[in-house]
Amino acid sequence: MLVTTHLFIPGPTNIPEAVRQAMDLRMEDMRSPEFPKFTLPLLEDLKKAFKLTQGRVFVYPSSGTGAWEAAITNTLSPGDKVLMSRFGQFSLLWVEMAKRLALNVEVIDEEWGKGIPVARYAEVLAADKNHEIKAVFATHNETATGVASDIGAVRKALDDANHPALLFVDGVSSVGSIDFRMDEWGVDACVSGSQKGFMLPAGLGILAVSNKALEAAKSSKMQRCFFSFEDMIKNNDNGYFPYTPATQLLRGLRASLDLLLGEGLDNVFARHQRLADGVRKAVAAWGLGLCAADPKWYSNTVSAVRVPEGIDSTQVVKTAFYRYNLSLGVGLNKVAGKVFRIGHLGAIDDIMIGGALFGCEMAMRDCGIDVAPGSGSGAAAEHFRATTKASATSRPEAALKLVS
Amino acid sequence: MLVTTHLFIPGPTNIPEAVRQAMDLRMEDMRSPEFPKFTLPLLEDLKKAFKLTQGRVFVYPSSGTGAWEAAITNTLSPGDKVLMSRFGQFSLLWVEMAKRLALNVEVIDEEWGKGIPVARYAEVLAADKNHEIKAVFATHNETATGVASDIGAVRKALDDANHPALLFVDGVSSVGSIDFRMDEWGVDACVSGSQKGFMLPAGLGILAVSNKALEAAKSSKMQRCFFSFEDMIKNNDNGYFPYTPATQLLRGLRASLDLLLGEGLDNVFARHQRLADGVRKAVAAWGLGLCAADPKWYSNTVSAVRVPEGIDSTQVVKTAFYRYNLSLGVGLNKVAGKVFRIGHLGAIDDIMIGGALFGCEMAMRDCGIDVAPGSGSGAAAEHFRATTKASATSRPEAALKLVS
Amino acid sequence: MLVTTHLFIPGPTNIPEAVRQAMDLRMEDMRSPEFPKFTLPLLEDLKKAFKLTQGRVFVYPSSGTGAWEAAITNTLSPGDKVLMSRFGQFSLLWVEMAKRLALNVEVIDEEWGKGIPVARYAEVLAADKNHEIKAVFATHNETATGVASDIGAVRKALDDANHPALLFVDGVSSVGSIDFRMDEWGVDACVSGSQKGFMLPAGLGILAVSNKALEAAKSSKMQRCFFSFEDMIKNNDNGYFPYTPATQLLRGLRASLDLLLGEGLDNVFARHQRLADGVRKAVAAWGLGLCAADPKWYSNTVSAVRVPEGIDSTQVVKTAFYRYNLSLGVGLNKVAGKVFRIGHLGAIDDIMIGGALFGCEMAMRDCGIDVAPGSGSGAAAEHFRATTKASATSRPEAALKLVS
Amino acid sequence: MLVTTHLFIPGPTNIPEAVRQAMDLRMEDMRSPEFPKFTLPLLEDLKKAFKLTQGRVFVYPSSGTGAWEAAITNTLSPGDKVLMSRFGQFSLLWVEMAKRLALNVEVIDEEWGKGIPVARYAEVLAADKNHEIKAVFATHNETATGVASDIGAVRKALDDANHPALLFVDGVSSVGSIDFRMDEWGVDACVSGSQKGFMLPAGLGILAVSNKALEAAKSSKMQRCFFSFEDMIKNNDNGYFPYTPATQLLRGLRASLDLLLGEGLDNVFARHQRLADGVRKAVAAWGLGLCAADPKWYSNTVSAVRVPEGIDSTQVVKTAFYRYNLSLGVGLNKVAGKVFRIGHLGAIDDIMIGGALFGCEMAMRDCGIDVAPGSGSGAAAEHFRATTKASATSRPEAALKLVS
Repeated sequence: MLVTTHLFIPGPTNIPEAVRQAMDLRMEDMRSPEFPKFTLPLLEDLKKAFKLTQGRVFVYPSSGTGAWEAAITNTLSPGDKVLMSRFGQFSLLWVEMAKRLALNVEVIDEEWGKGIPVARYAEVLAADKNHEIKAVFATHNETATGVASDIGAVRKALDDANHPALLFVDGVSSVGSIDFRMDEWGVDACVSGSQKGFMLPAGLGILAVSNKALEAAKSSKMQRCFFSFEDMIKNNDNGYFPYTPATQLLRGLRASLDLLLGEGLDNVFARHQRLADGVRKAVAAWGLGLCAADPKWYSNTVSAVRVPEGIDSTQVVKTAFYRYNLSLGVGLNKVAGKVFRIGHLGAIDDIMIGGALFGCEMAMRDCGIDVAPGSGSGAAAEHFRATTKASATSRPEAALKLVS
Repeated sequence: MLVTTHLFIPGPTNIPEAVRQAMDLRMEDMRSPEFPKFTLPLLEDLKKAFKLTQGRVFVYPSSGTGAWEAAITNTLSPGDKVLMSRFGQFSLLWVEMAKRLALNVEVIDEEWGKGIPVARYAEVLAADKNHEIKAVFATHNETATGVASDIGAVRKALDDANHPALLFVDGVSSVGSIDFRMDEWGVDACVSGSQKGFMLPAGLGILAVSNKALEAAKSSKMQRCFFSFEDMIKNNDNGYFPYTPATQLLRGLRASLDLLLGEGLDNVFARHQRLADGVRKAVAAWGLGLCAADPKWYSNTVSAVRVPEGIDSTQVVKTAFYRYNLSLGVGLNKVAGKVFRIGHLGAIDDIMIGGALFGCEMAMRDCGIDVAPGSGSGAAAEHFRATTKASATSRPEAALKLVS
Repeated sequence: MLVTTHLFIPGPTNIPEAVRQAMDLRMEDMRSPEFPKFTLPLLEDLKKAFKLTQGRVFVYPSSGTGAWEAAITNTLSPGDKVLMSRFGQFSLLWVEMAKRLALNVEVIDEEWGKGIPVARYAEVLAADKNHEIKAVFATHNETATGVASDIGAVRKALDDANHPALLFVDGVSSVGSIDFRMDEWGVDACVSGSQKGFMLPAGLGILAVSNKALEAAKSSKMQRCFFSFEDMIKNNDNGYFPYTPATQLLRGLRASLDLLLGEGLDNVFARHQRLADGVRKAVAAWGLGLCAADPKWYSNTVSAVRVPEGIDSTQVVKTAFYRYNLSLGVGLNKVAGKVFRIGHLGAIDDIMIGGALFGCEMAMRDCGIDVAPGSGSGAAAEHFRATTKASATSRPEAALKLVS
Repeated sequence: MLVTTHLFIPGPTNIPEAVRQAMDLRMEDMRSPEFPKFTLPLLEDLKKAFKLTQGRVFVYPSSGTGAWEAAITNTLSPGDKVLMSRFGQFSLLWVEMAKRLALNVEVIDEEWGKGIPVARYAEVLAADKNHEIKAVFATHNETATGVASDIGAVRKALDDANHPALLFVDGVSSVGSIDFRMDEWGVDACVSGSQKGFMLPAGLGILAVSNKALEAAKSSKMQRCFFSFEDMIKNNDNGYFPYTPATQLLRGLRASLDLLLGEGLDNVFARHQRLADGVRKAVAAWGLGLCAADPKWYSNTVSAVRVPEGIDSTQVVKTAFYRYNLSLGVGLNKVAGKVFRIGHLGAIDDIMIGGALFGCEMAMRDCGIDVAPGSGSGAAAEHFRATTKASATSRPEAALKLVS
């Protein structure tokens, strides 16, 4: 194919050139005496992406789903009671997993389009005087509905109830793109993957854990082996892994972290906010709404756009894909047919957003949605012009870099 | 840098993934007994890109400029009279070269924005009863002004005058993008390069020549060595080169030809026409004009957009580059400050054009050009929607391919 | 580093150029309607690498260890009795895993350097009249000692005892390199990974299963989620995966399968045999022995070379690595310090073996092992000369290939 | 093909991974305002590879042959008398070119296997009282015979005769591999290419010139355009090029220079000396001789090995290529059939040399040359062991690097 499909799904995301080049490599010996000189700083720097200092990060050759499983099977025991909420396909799947892994799940269902029901969490936690609830689960960014929730508020609910439960966060589509403060929010396990904010191919499940979670792991009675913290820790401490790690992706992760930390995490988050705002300006100009029910829930990594009644959003996605070479996300489960999703995370910029909006407009009009041609991209453009901090006449000098 | 600059200059163009992968390779022995199995079919297929059957193509490790020089130094002699025209920076530079290479150049100057003055050519040729003119030069696509000329008409002028002069064409920014018919138009030498329609990095000067040109080479008295046809022919006939060829680019060229011939040249040309029309719809919607003075001269590979009086087009280009990560072409020489150029050739598609127009609008507005936000991209989108032949529900099956 | 370390460990192995190029790519949408056109034939062709027609292959983003776990957790239940043997580090680790996953493991310990104790297996199976043993585990190629076992004989032991137990094989360092006949040998689960015979980076756990194993999965009561067959089947049947697959590796796997199936599996196996024989000729010429106690156990993918008493083999490996840029495998556990391992699987050829032997000789001599300079490489060279089937004057034509 | 041919020709050489990755890139705008920030330091650093401070380096998209032509056409005039010598295929071709470019060439023929006849040069120069000789040509390393000459001695001959002629050096197969001191030796033009010591693909002609040569260019009357210094200088001074440069190779050159200058040029030269000595130890152990007639002429980048009477060296090369996947150089012209050449320059190491010698032994024995198996590699190994400076237990830390 002459031009590769333009990727505006909420992951996998586009790969920066530096990351791609770093992965174009020969294989290496993952048991060589030099390997730890690469891995030990990598694992240390990876903690920074979570704003984590007290704890550690595990990198599994797997996926975000694998890291979900790792978090549960290492810290909990069969029959443990956990508090979860369900307001989108991915929070739903996490609940499914918890049930299959024999947890006693108290689920609070929330309308799709809203976020974590913190007030309900607070009530439940306050009522749980005996501390039967061992862990509270929170989906930071629900990828299916484009809804971001307030993890700090969940922490506050736990603190207000003086509740000792572990706090687990699904940060798959937020870490590296939306501010995430593991230490400050007292998060005990945060799940991520390589193919979203880390701008890598899929293939790594990344799990950050607090010291409290590591302590809990010592008494957990759930069956585990591949995902065992214990094996990882024993090997990671020396810069190795219990089985052959995905070195190609680890080399890519090094390049990705260099980019993220070089830009500065807070700059990365601001960049995502600005681009997301541009997309939202376009949606408003189209006269359409988002699945996210309130601005406080707007996600800076993915926007789920509601199509008018009588229109099948899946058809919009298919048209965009086949006719205009543009990959969008379909609506899933309860919002199937009702929304299409624009991913706007990772290595993208104003021009790429412009291209995506251009494609959305064409596909929507093809499918009978009467948006004015150029309305969305015009609105986004005005937003980008008004908010850019880039100089029109020069570029900042590149920083010095330590080369290992 | 997180996102590589979006390239909408009229070359180098974007590289298709298949071509990029083909050039990510180890070095090879260009004198191995297997090398000709690669080069002989390559050189043969390359002729197809010129619609050439009677003649041959030379591939030099150089640039289009080198191929210009090769065409002249191999077929003409010092003092030879040649007919040229000048209506843009690249036709101007070709005239410069001809003079420096000691040709006796009769130059017809034409307004920048117009194309080859065929009527004047006809007059001059008709008047040249003694056939002092040894060669007629024609710039198929003037990259500086976005003007395409009618090479068939130049041929006709020669035929009508029953004139035996050689016909030389600069096809650097047309071959592989705009229909070029070497046999049919009786072109004797057509110059091209790797970094335009062939969608490769710069580094190859490609020169297609007719048998008549090869015959002329036998009596040419101009000094040459690196660019000598004779050395090339002797080696090429056996699948080799007189000096180390740029094998990396030759491997890329193989992949590029596979893409072009696989799509079908006429489909390639139609694709360029459609995208160019989209850009022109945008320019019209902006209320701006092109440098090309008449639709018959519209180029399908590059559009030079005139900015309003009082605006410096160079500033638009600089703003697009620094602020929006978009590379456009500046105006050169006589049109410096007056036009900016959008390259729309090679591996691009609707969405990419949409992104480029989005960036142009932002940069123009930043520079005080009052185009309506979204006006250009909206107009282009409507054109693309109306003219797409892509199905919204399926993709044609990939063809079978012979793998060497 | 100017020259990348030469890799002669038993995995990860060297990556062929075609595979490397195939993985140098942009990301793609793993939920696009076109994705199944890639994955369905891939999964089908992958079965051929196992000589499997009755069953299916699962590809997990994980490692061989993950595929071990997948095999167990999907087909067995806690407390199930299984028969295993232990004669090297990897068979040992598999036993460990089985115990941790709550199986009731009957372990037969065998001397390290010998293979599966088939006679003992036969006795145990014959004695198990009530068929309490649910599965028999067999390590096809013990990577730690360079010992290959006879899986057909294990099958025969089961058949002779008319025993219905499942037959599980660890084929991580054999599949794609040493003949493996899943259908013929009645293997129910065969575990492999991407970084050995498949010549890819680490990151995929590949598990081939028979229909019998799939049937067993329906009544298995072990906890699982990430590795669940059920989720995989439901999605794979339509060409998708239950979570984001490692598409980069899957594209590489396509290229790898094209190479393996294009060469012909039996040719691949013969090639490995020939290269391994060359290494063994060298070892004999050095006056050293292999860890494998008998020629019938010689592995065609890795040779564990015994160093003389008083020499620390780890020092040989370290010297080779640091001084000569050559990665060998150390001795593990019971054979630590006693053997060093030469991996000779995947994309290697005569010349590379020559280079590796050259490095081994230097490192051994540096460490006080008195092998005659050039003795090993000379012996290997004579073997390669005597057994090569390559013509000295021509190369076979490339085959036609279907391009998706 | 599973394993790419092992390249031991004297160029193109093997590409280091860092260089390969640097060339796996998207295209860039060679007229962007940021481009000079890349090119200006590049051109400055490139001078270091020539030990040049007084002068400049031109980088042409061409080949070494093109740079030869650039040197001549920019500094001399038709009919100028020049002094050259001929003792191998490449010095012979340079003479051919000089004649074709209308120079009045005084050629001194020397036996193939010997180097520049400095004493004869001295005589001729001393006798040229009127300074009719405008330039003296010296082939630093004759690639066809593996003969390196003493450029400092040529300088001395000029100085002793107090002769003002320009000194031109062919450094194609020496620069970046064998010590070359442009300032110290008063060299006025040194020709090189990308595909030898610079470890890049072919495609760049690199020409270093002294200020004296630049001065001479002002009065040179030879026809030139593509290779014109004037155009280059005007553009290079601002960080640009007169036509589209081969940016992919320039990016690779940046990586290559980082490697060479990071290692330290004198370390690079010592490394080549050590590897070449190892090859020569092998040749001696085989009982064969080199084409180079005296140790003072031994080349550290290529060894031309003489085969015994009655053996066709071309057959050895063909056998190595087809049967063992090893590319060697054939004998050319006067030494055709008499020598085969082993290139040992660029990104190679002990192990690779070991592999190449292994292949040479096999191919020679196949062709009836009775070298003892392992004799050559054994001798080389002992040399490498005795001379390595690498620690067996650690690796030096990577240096800091400025990242642009």
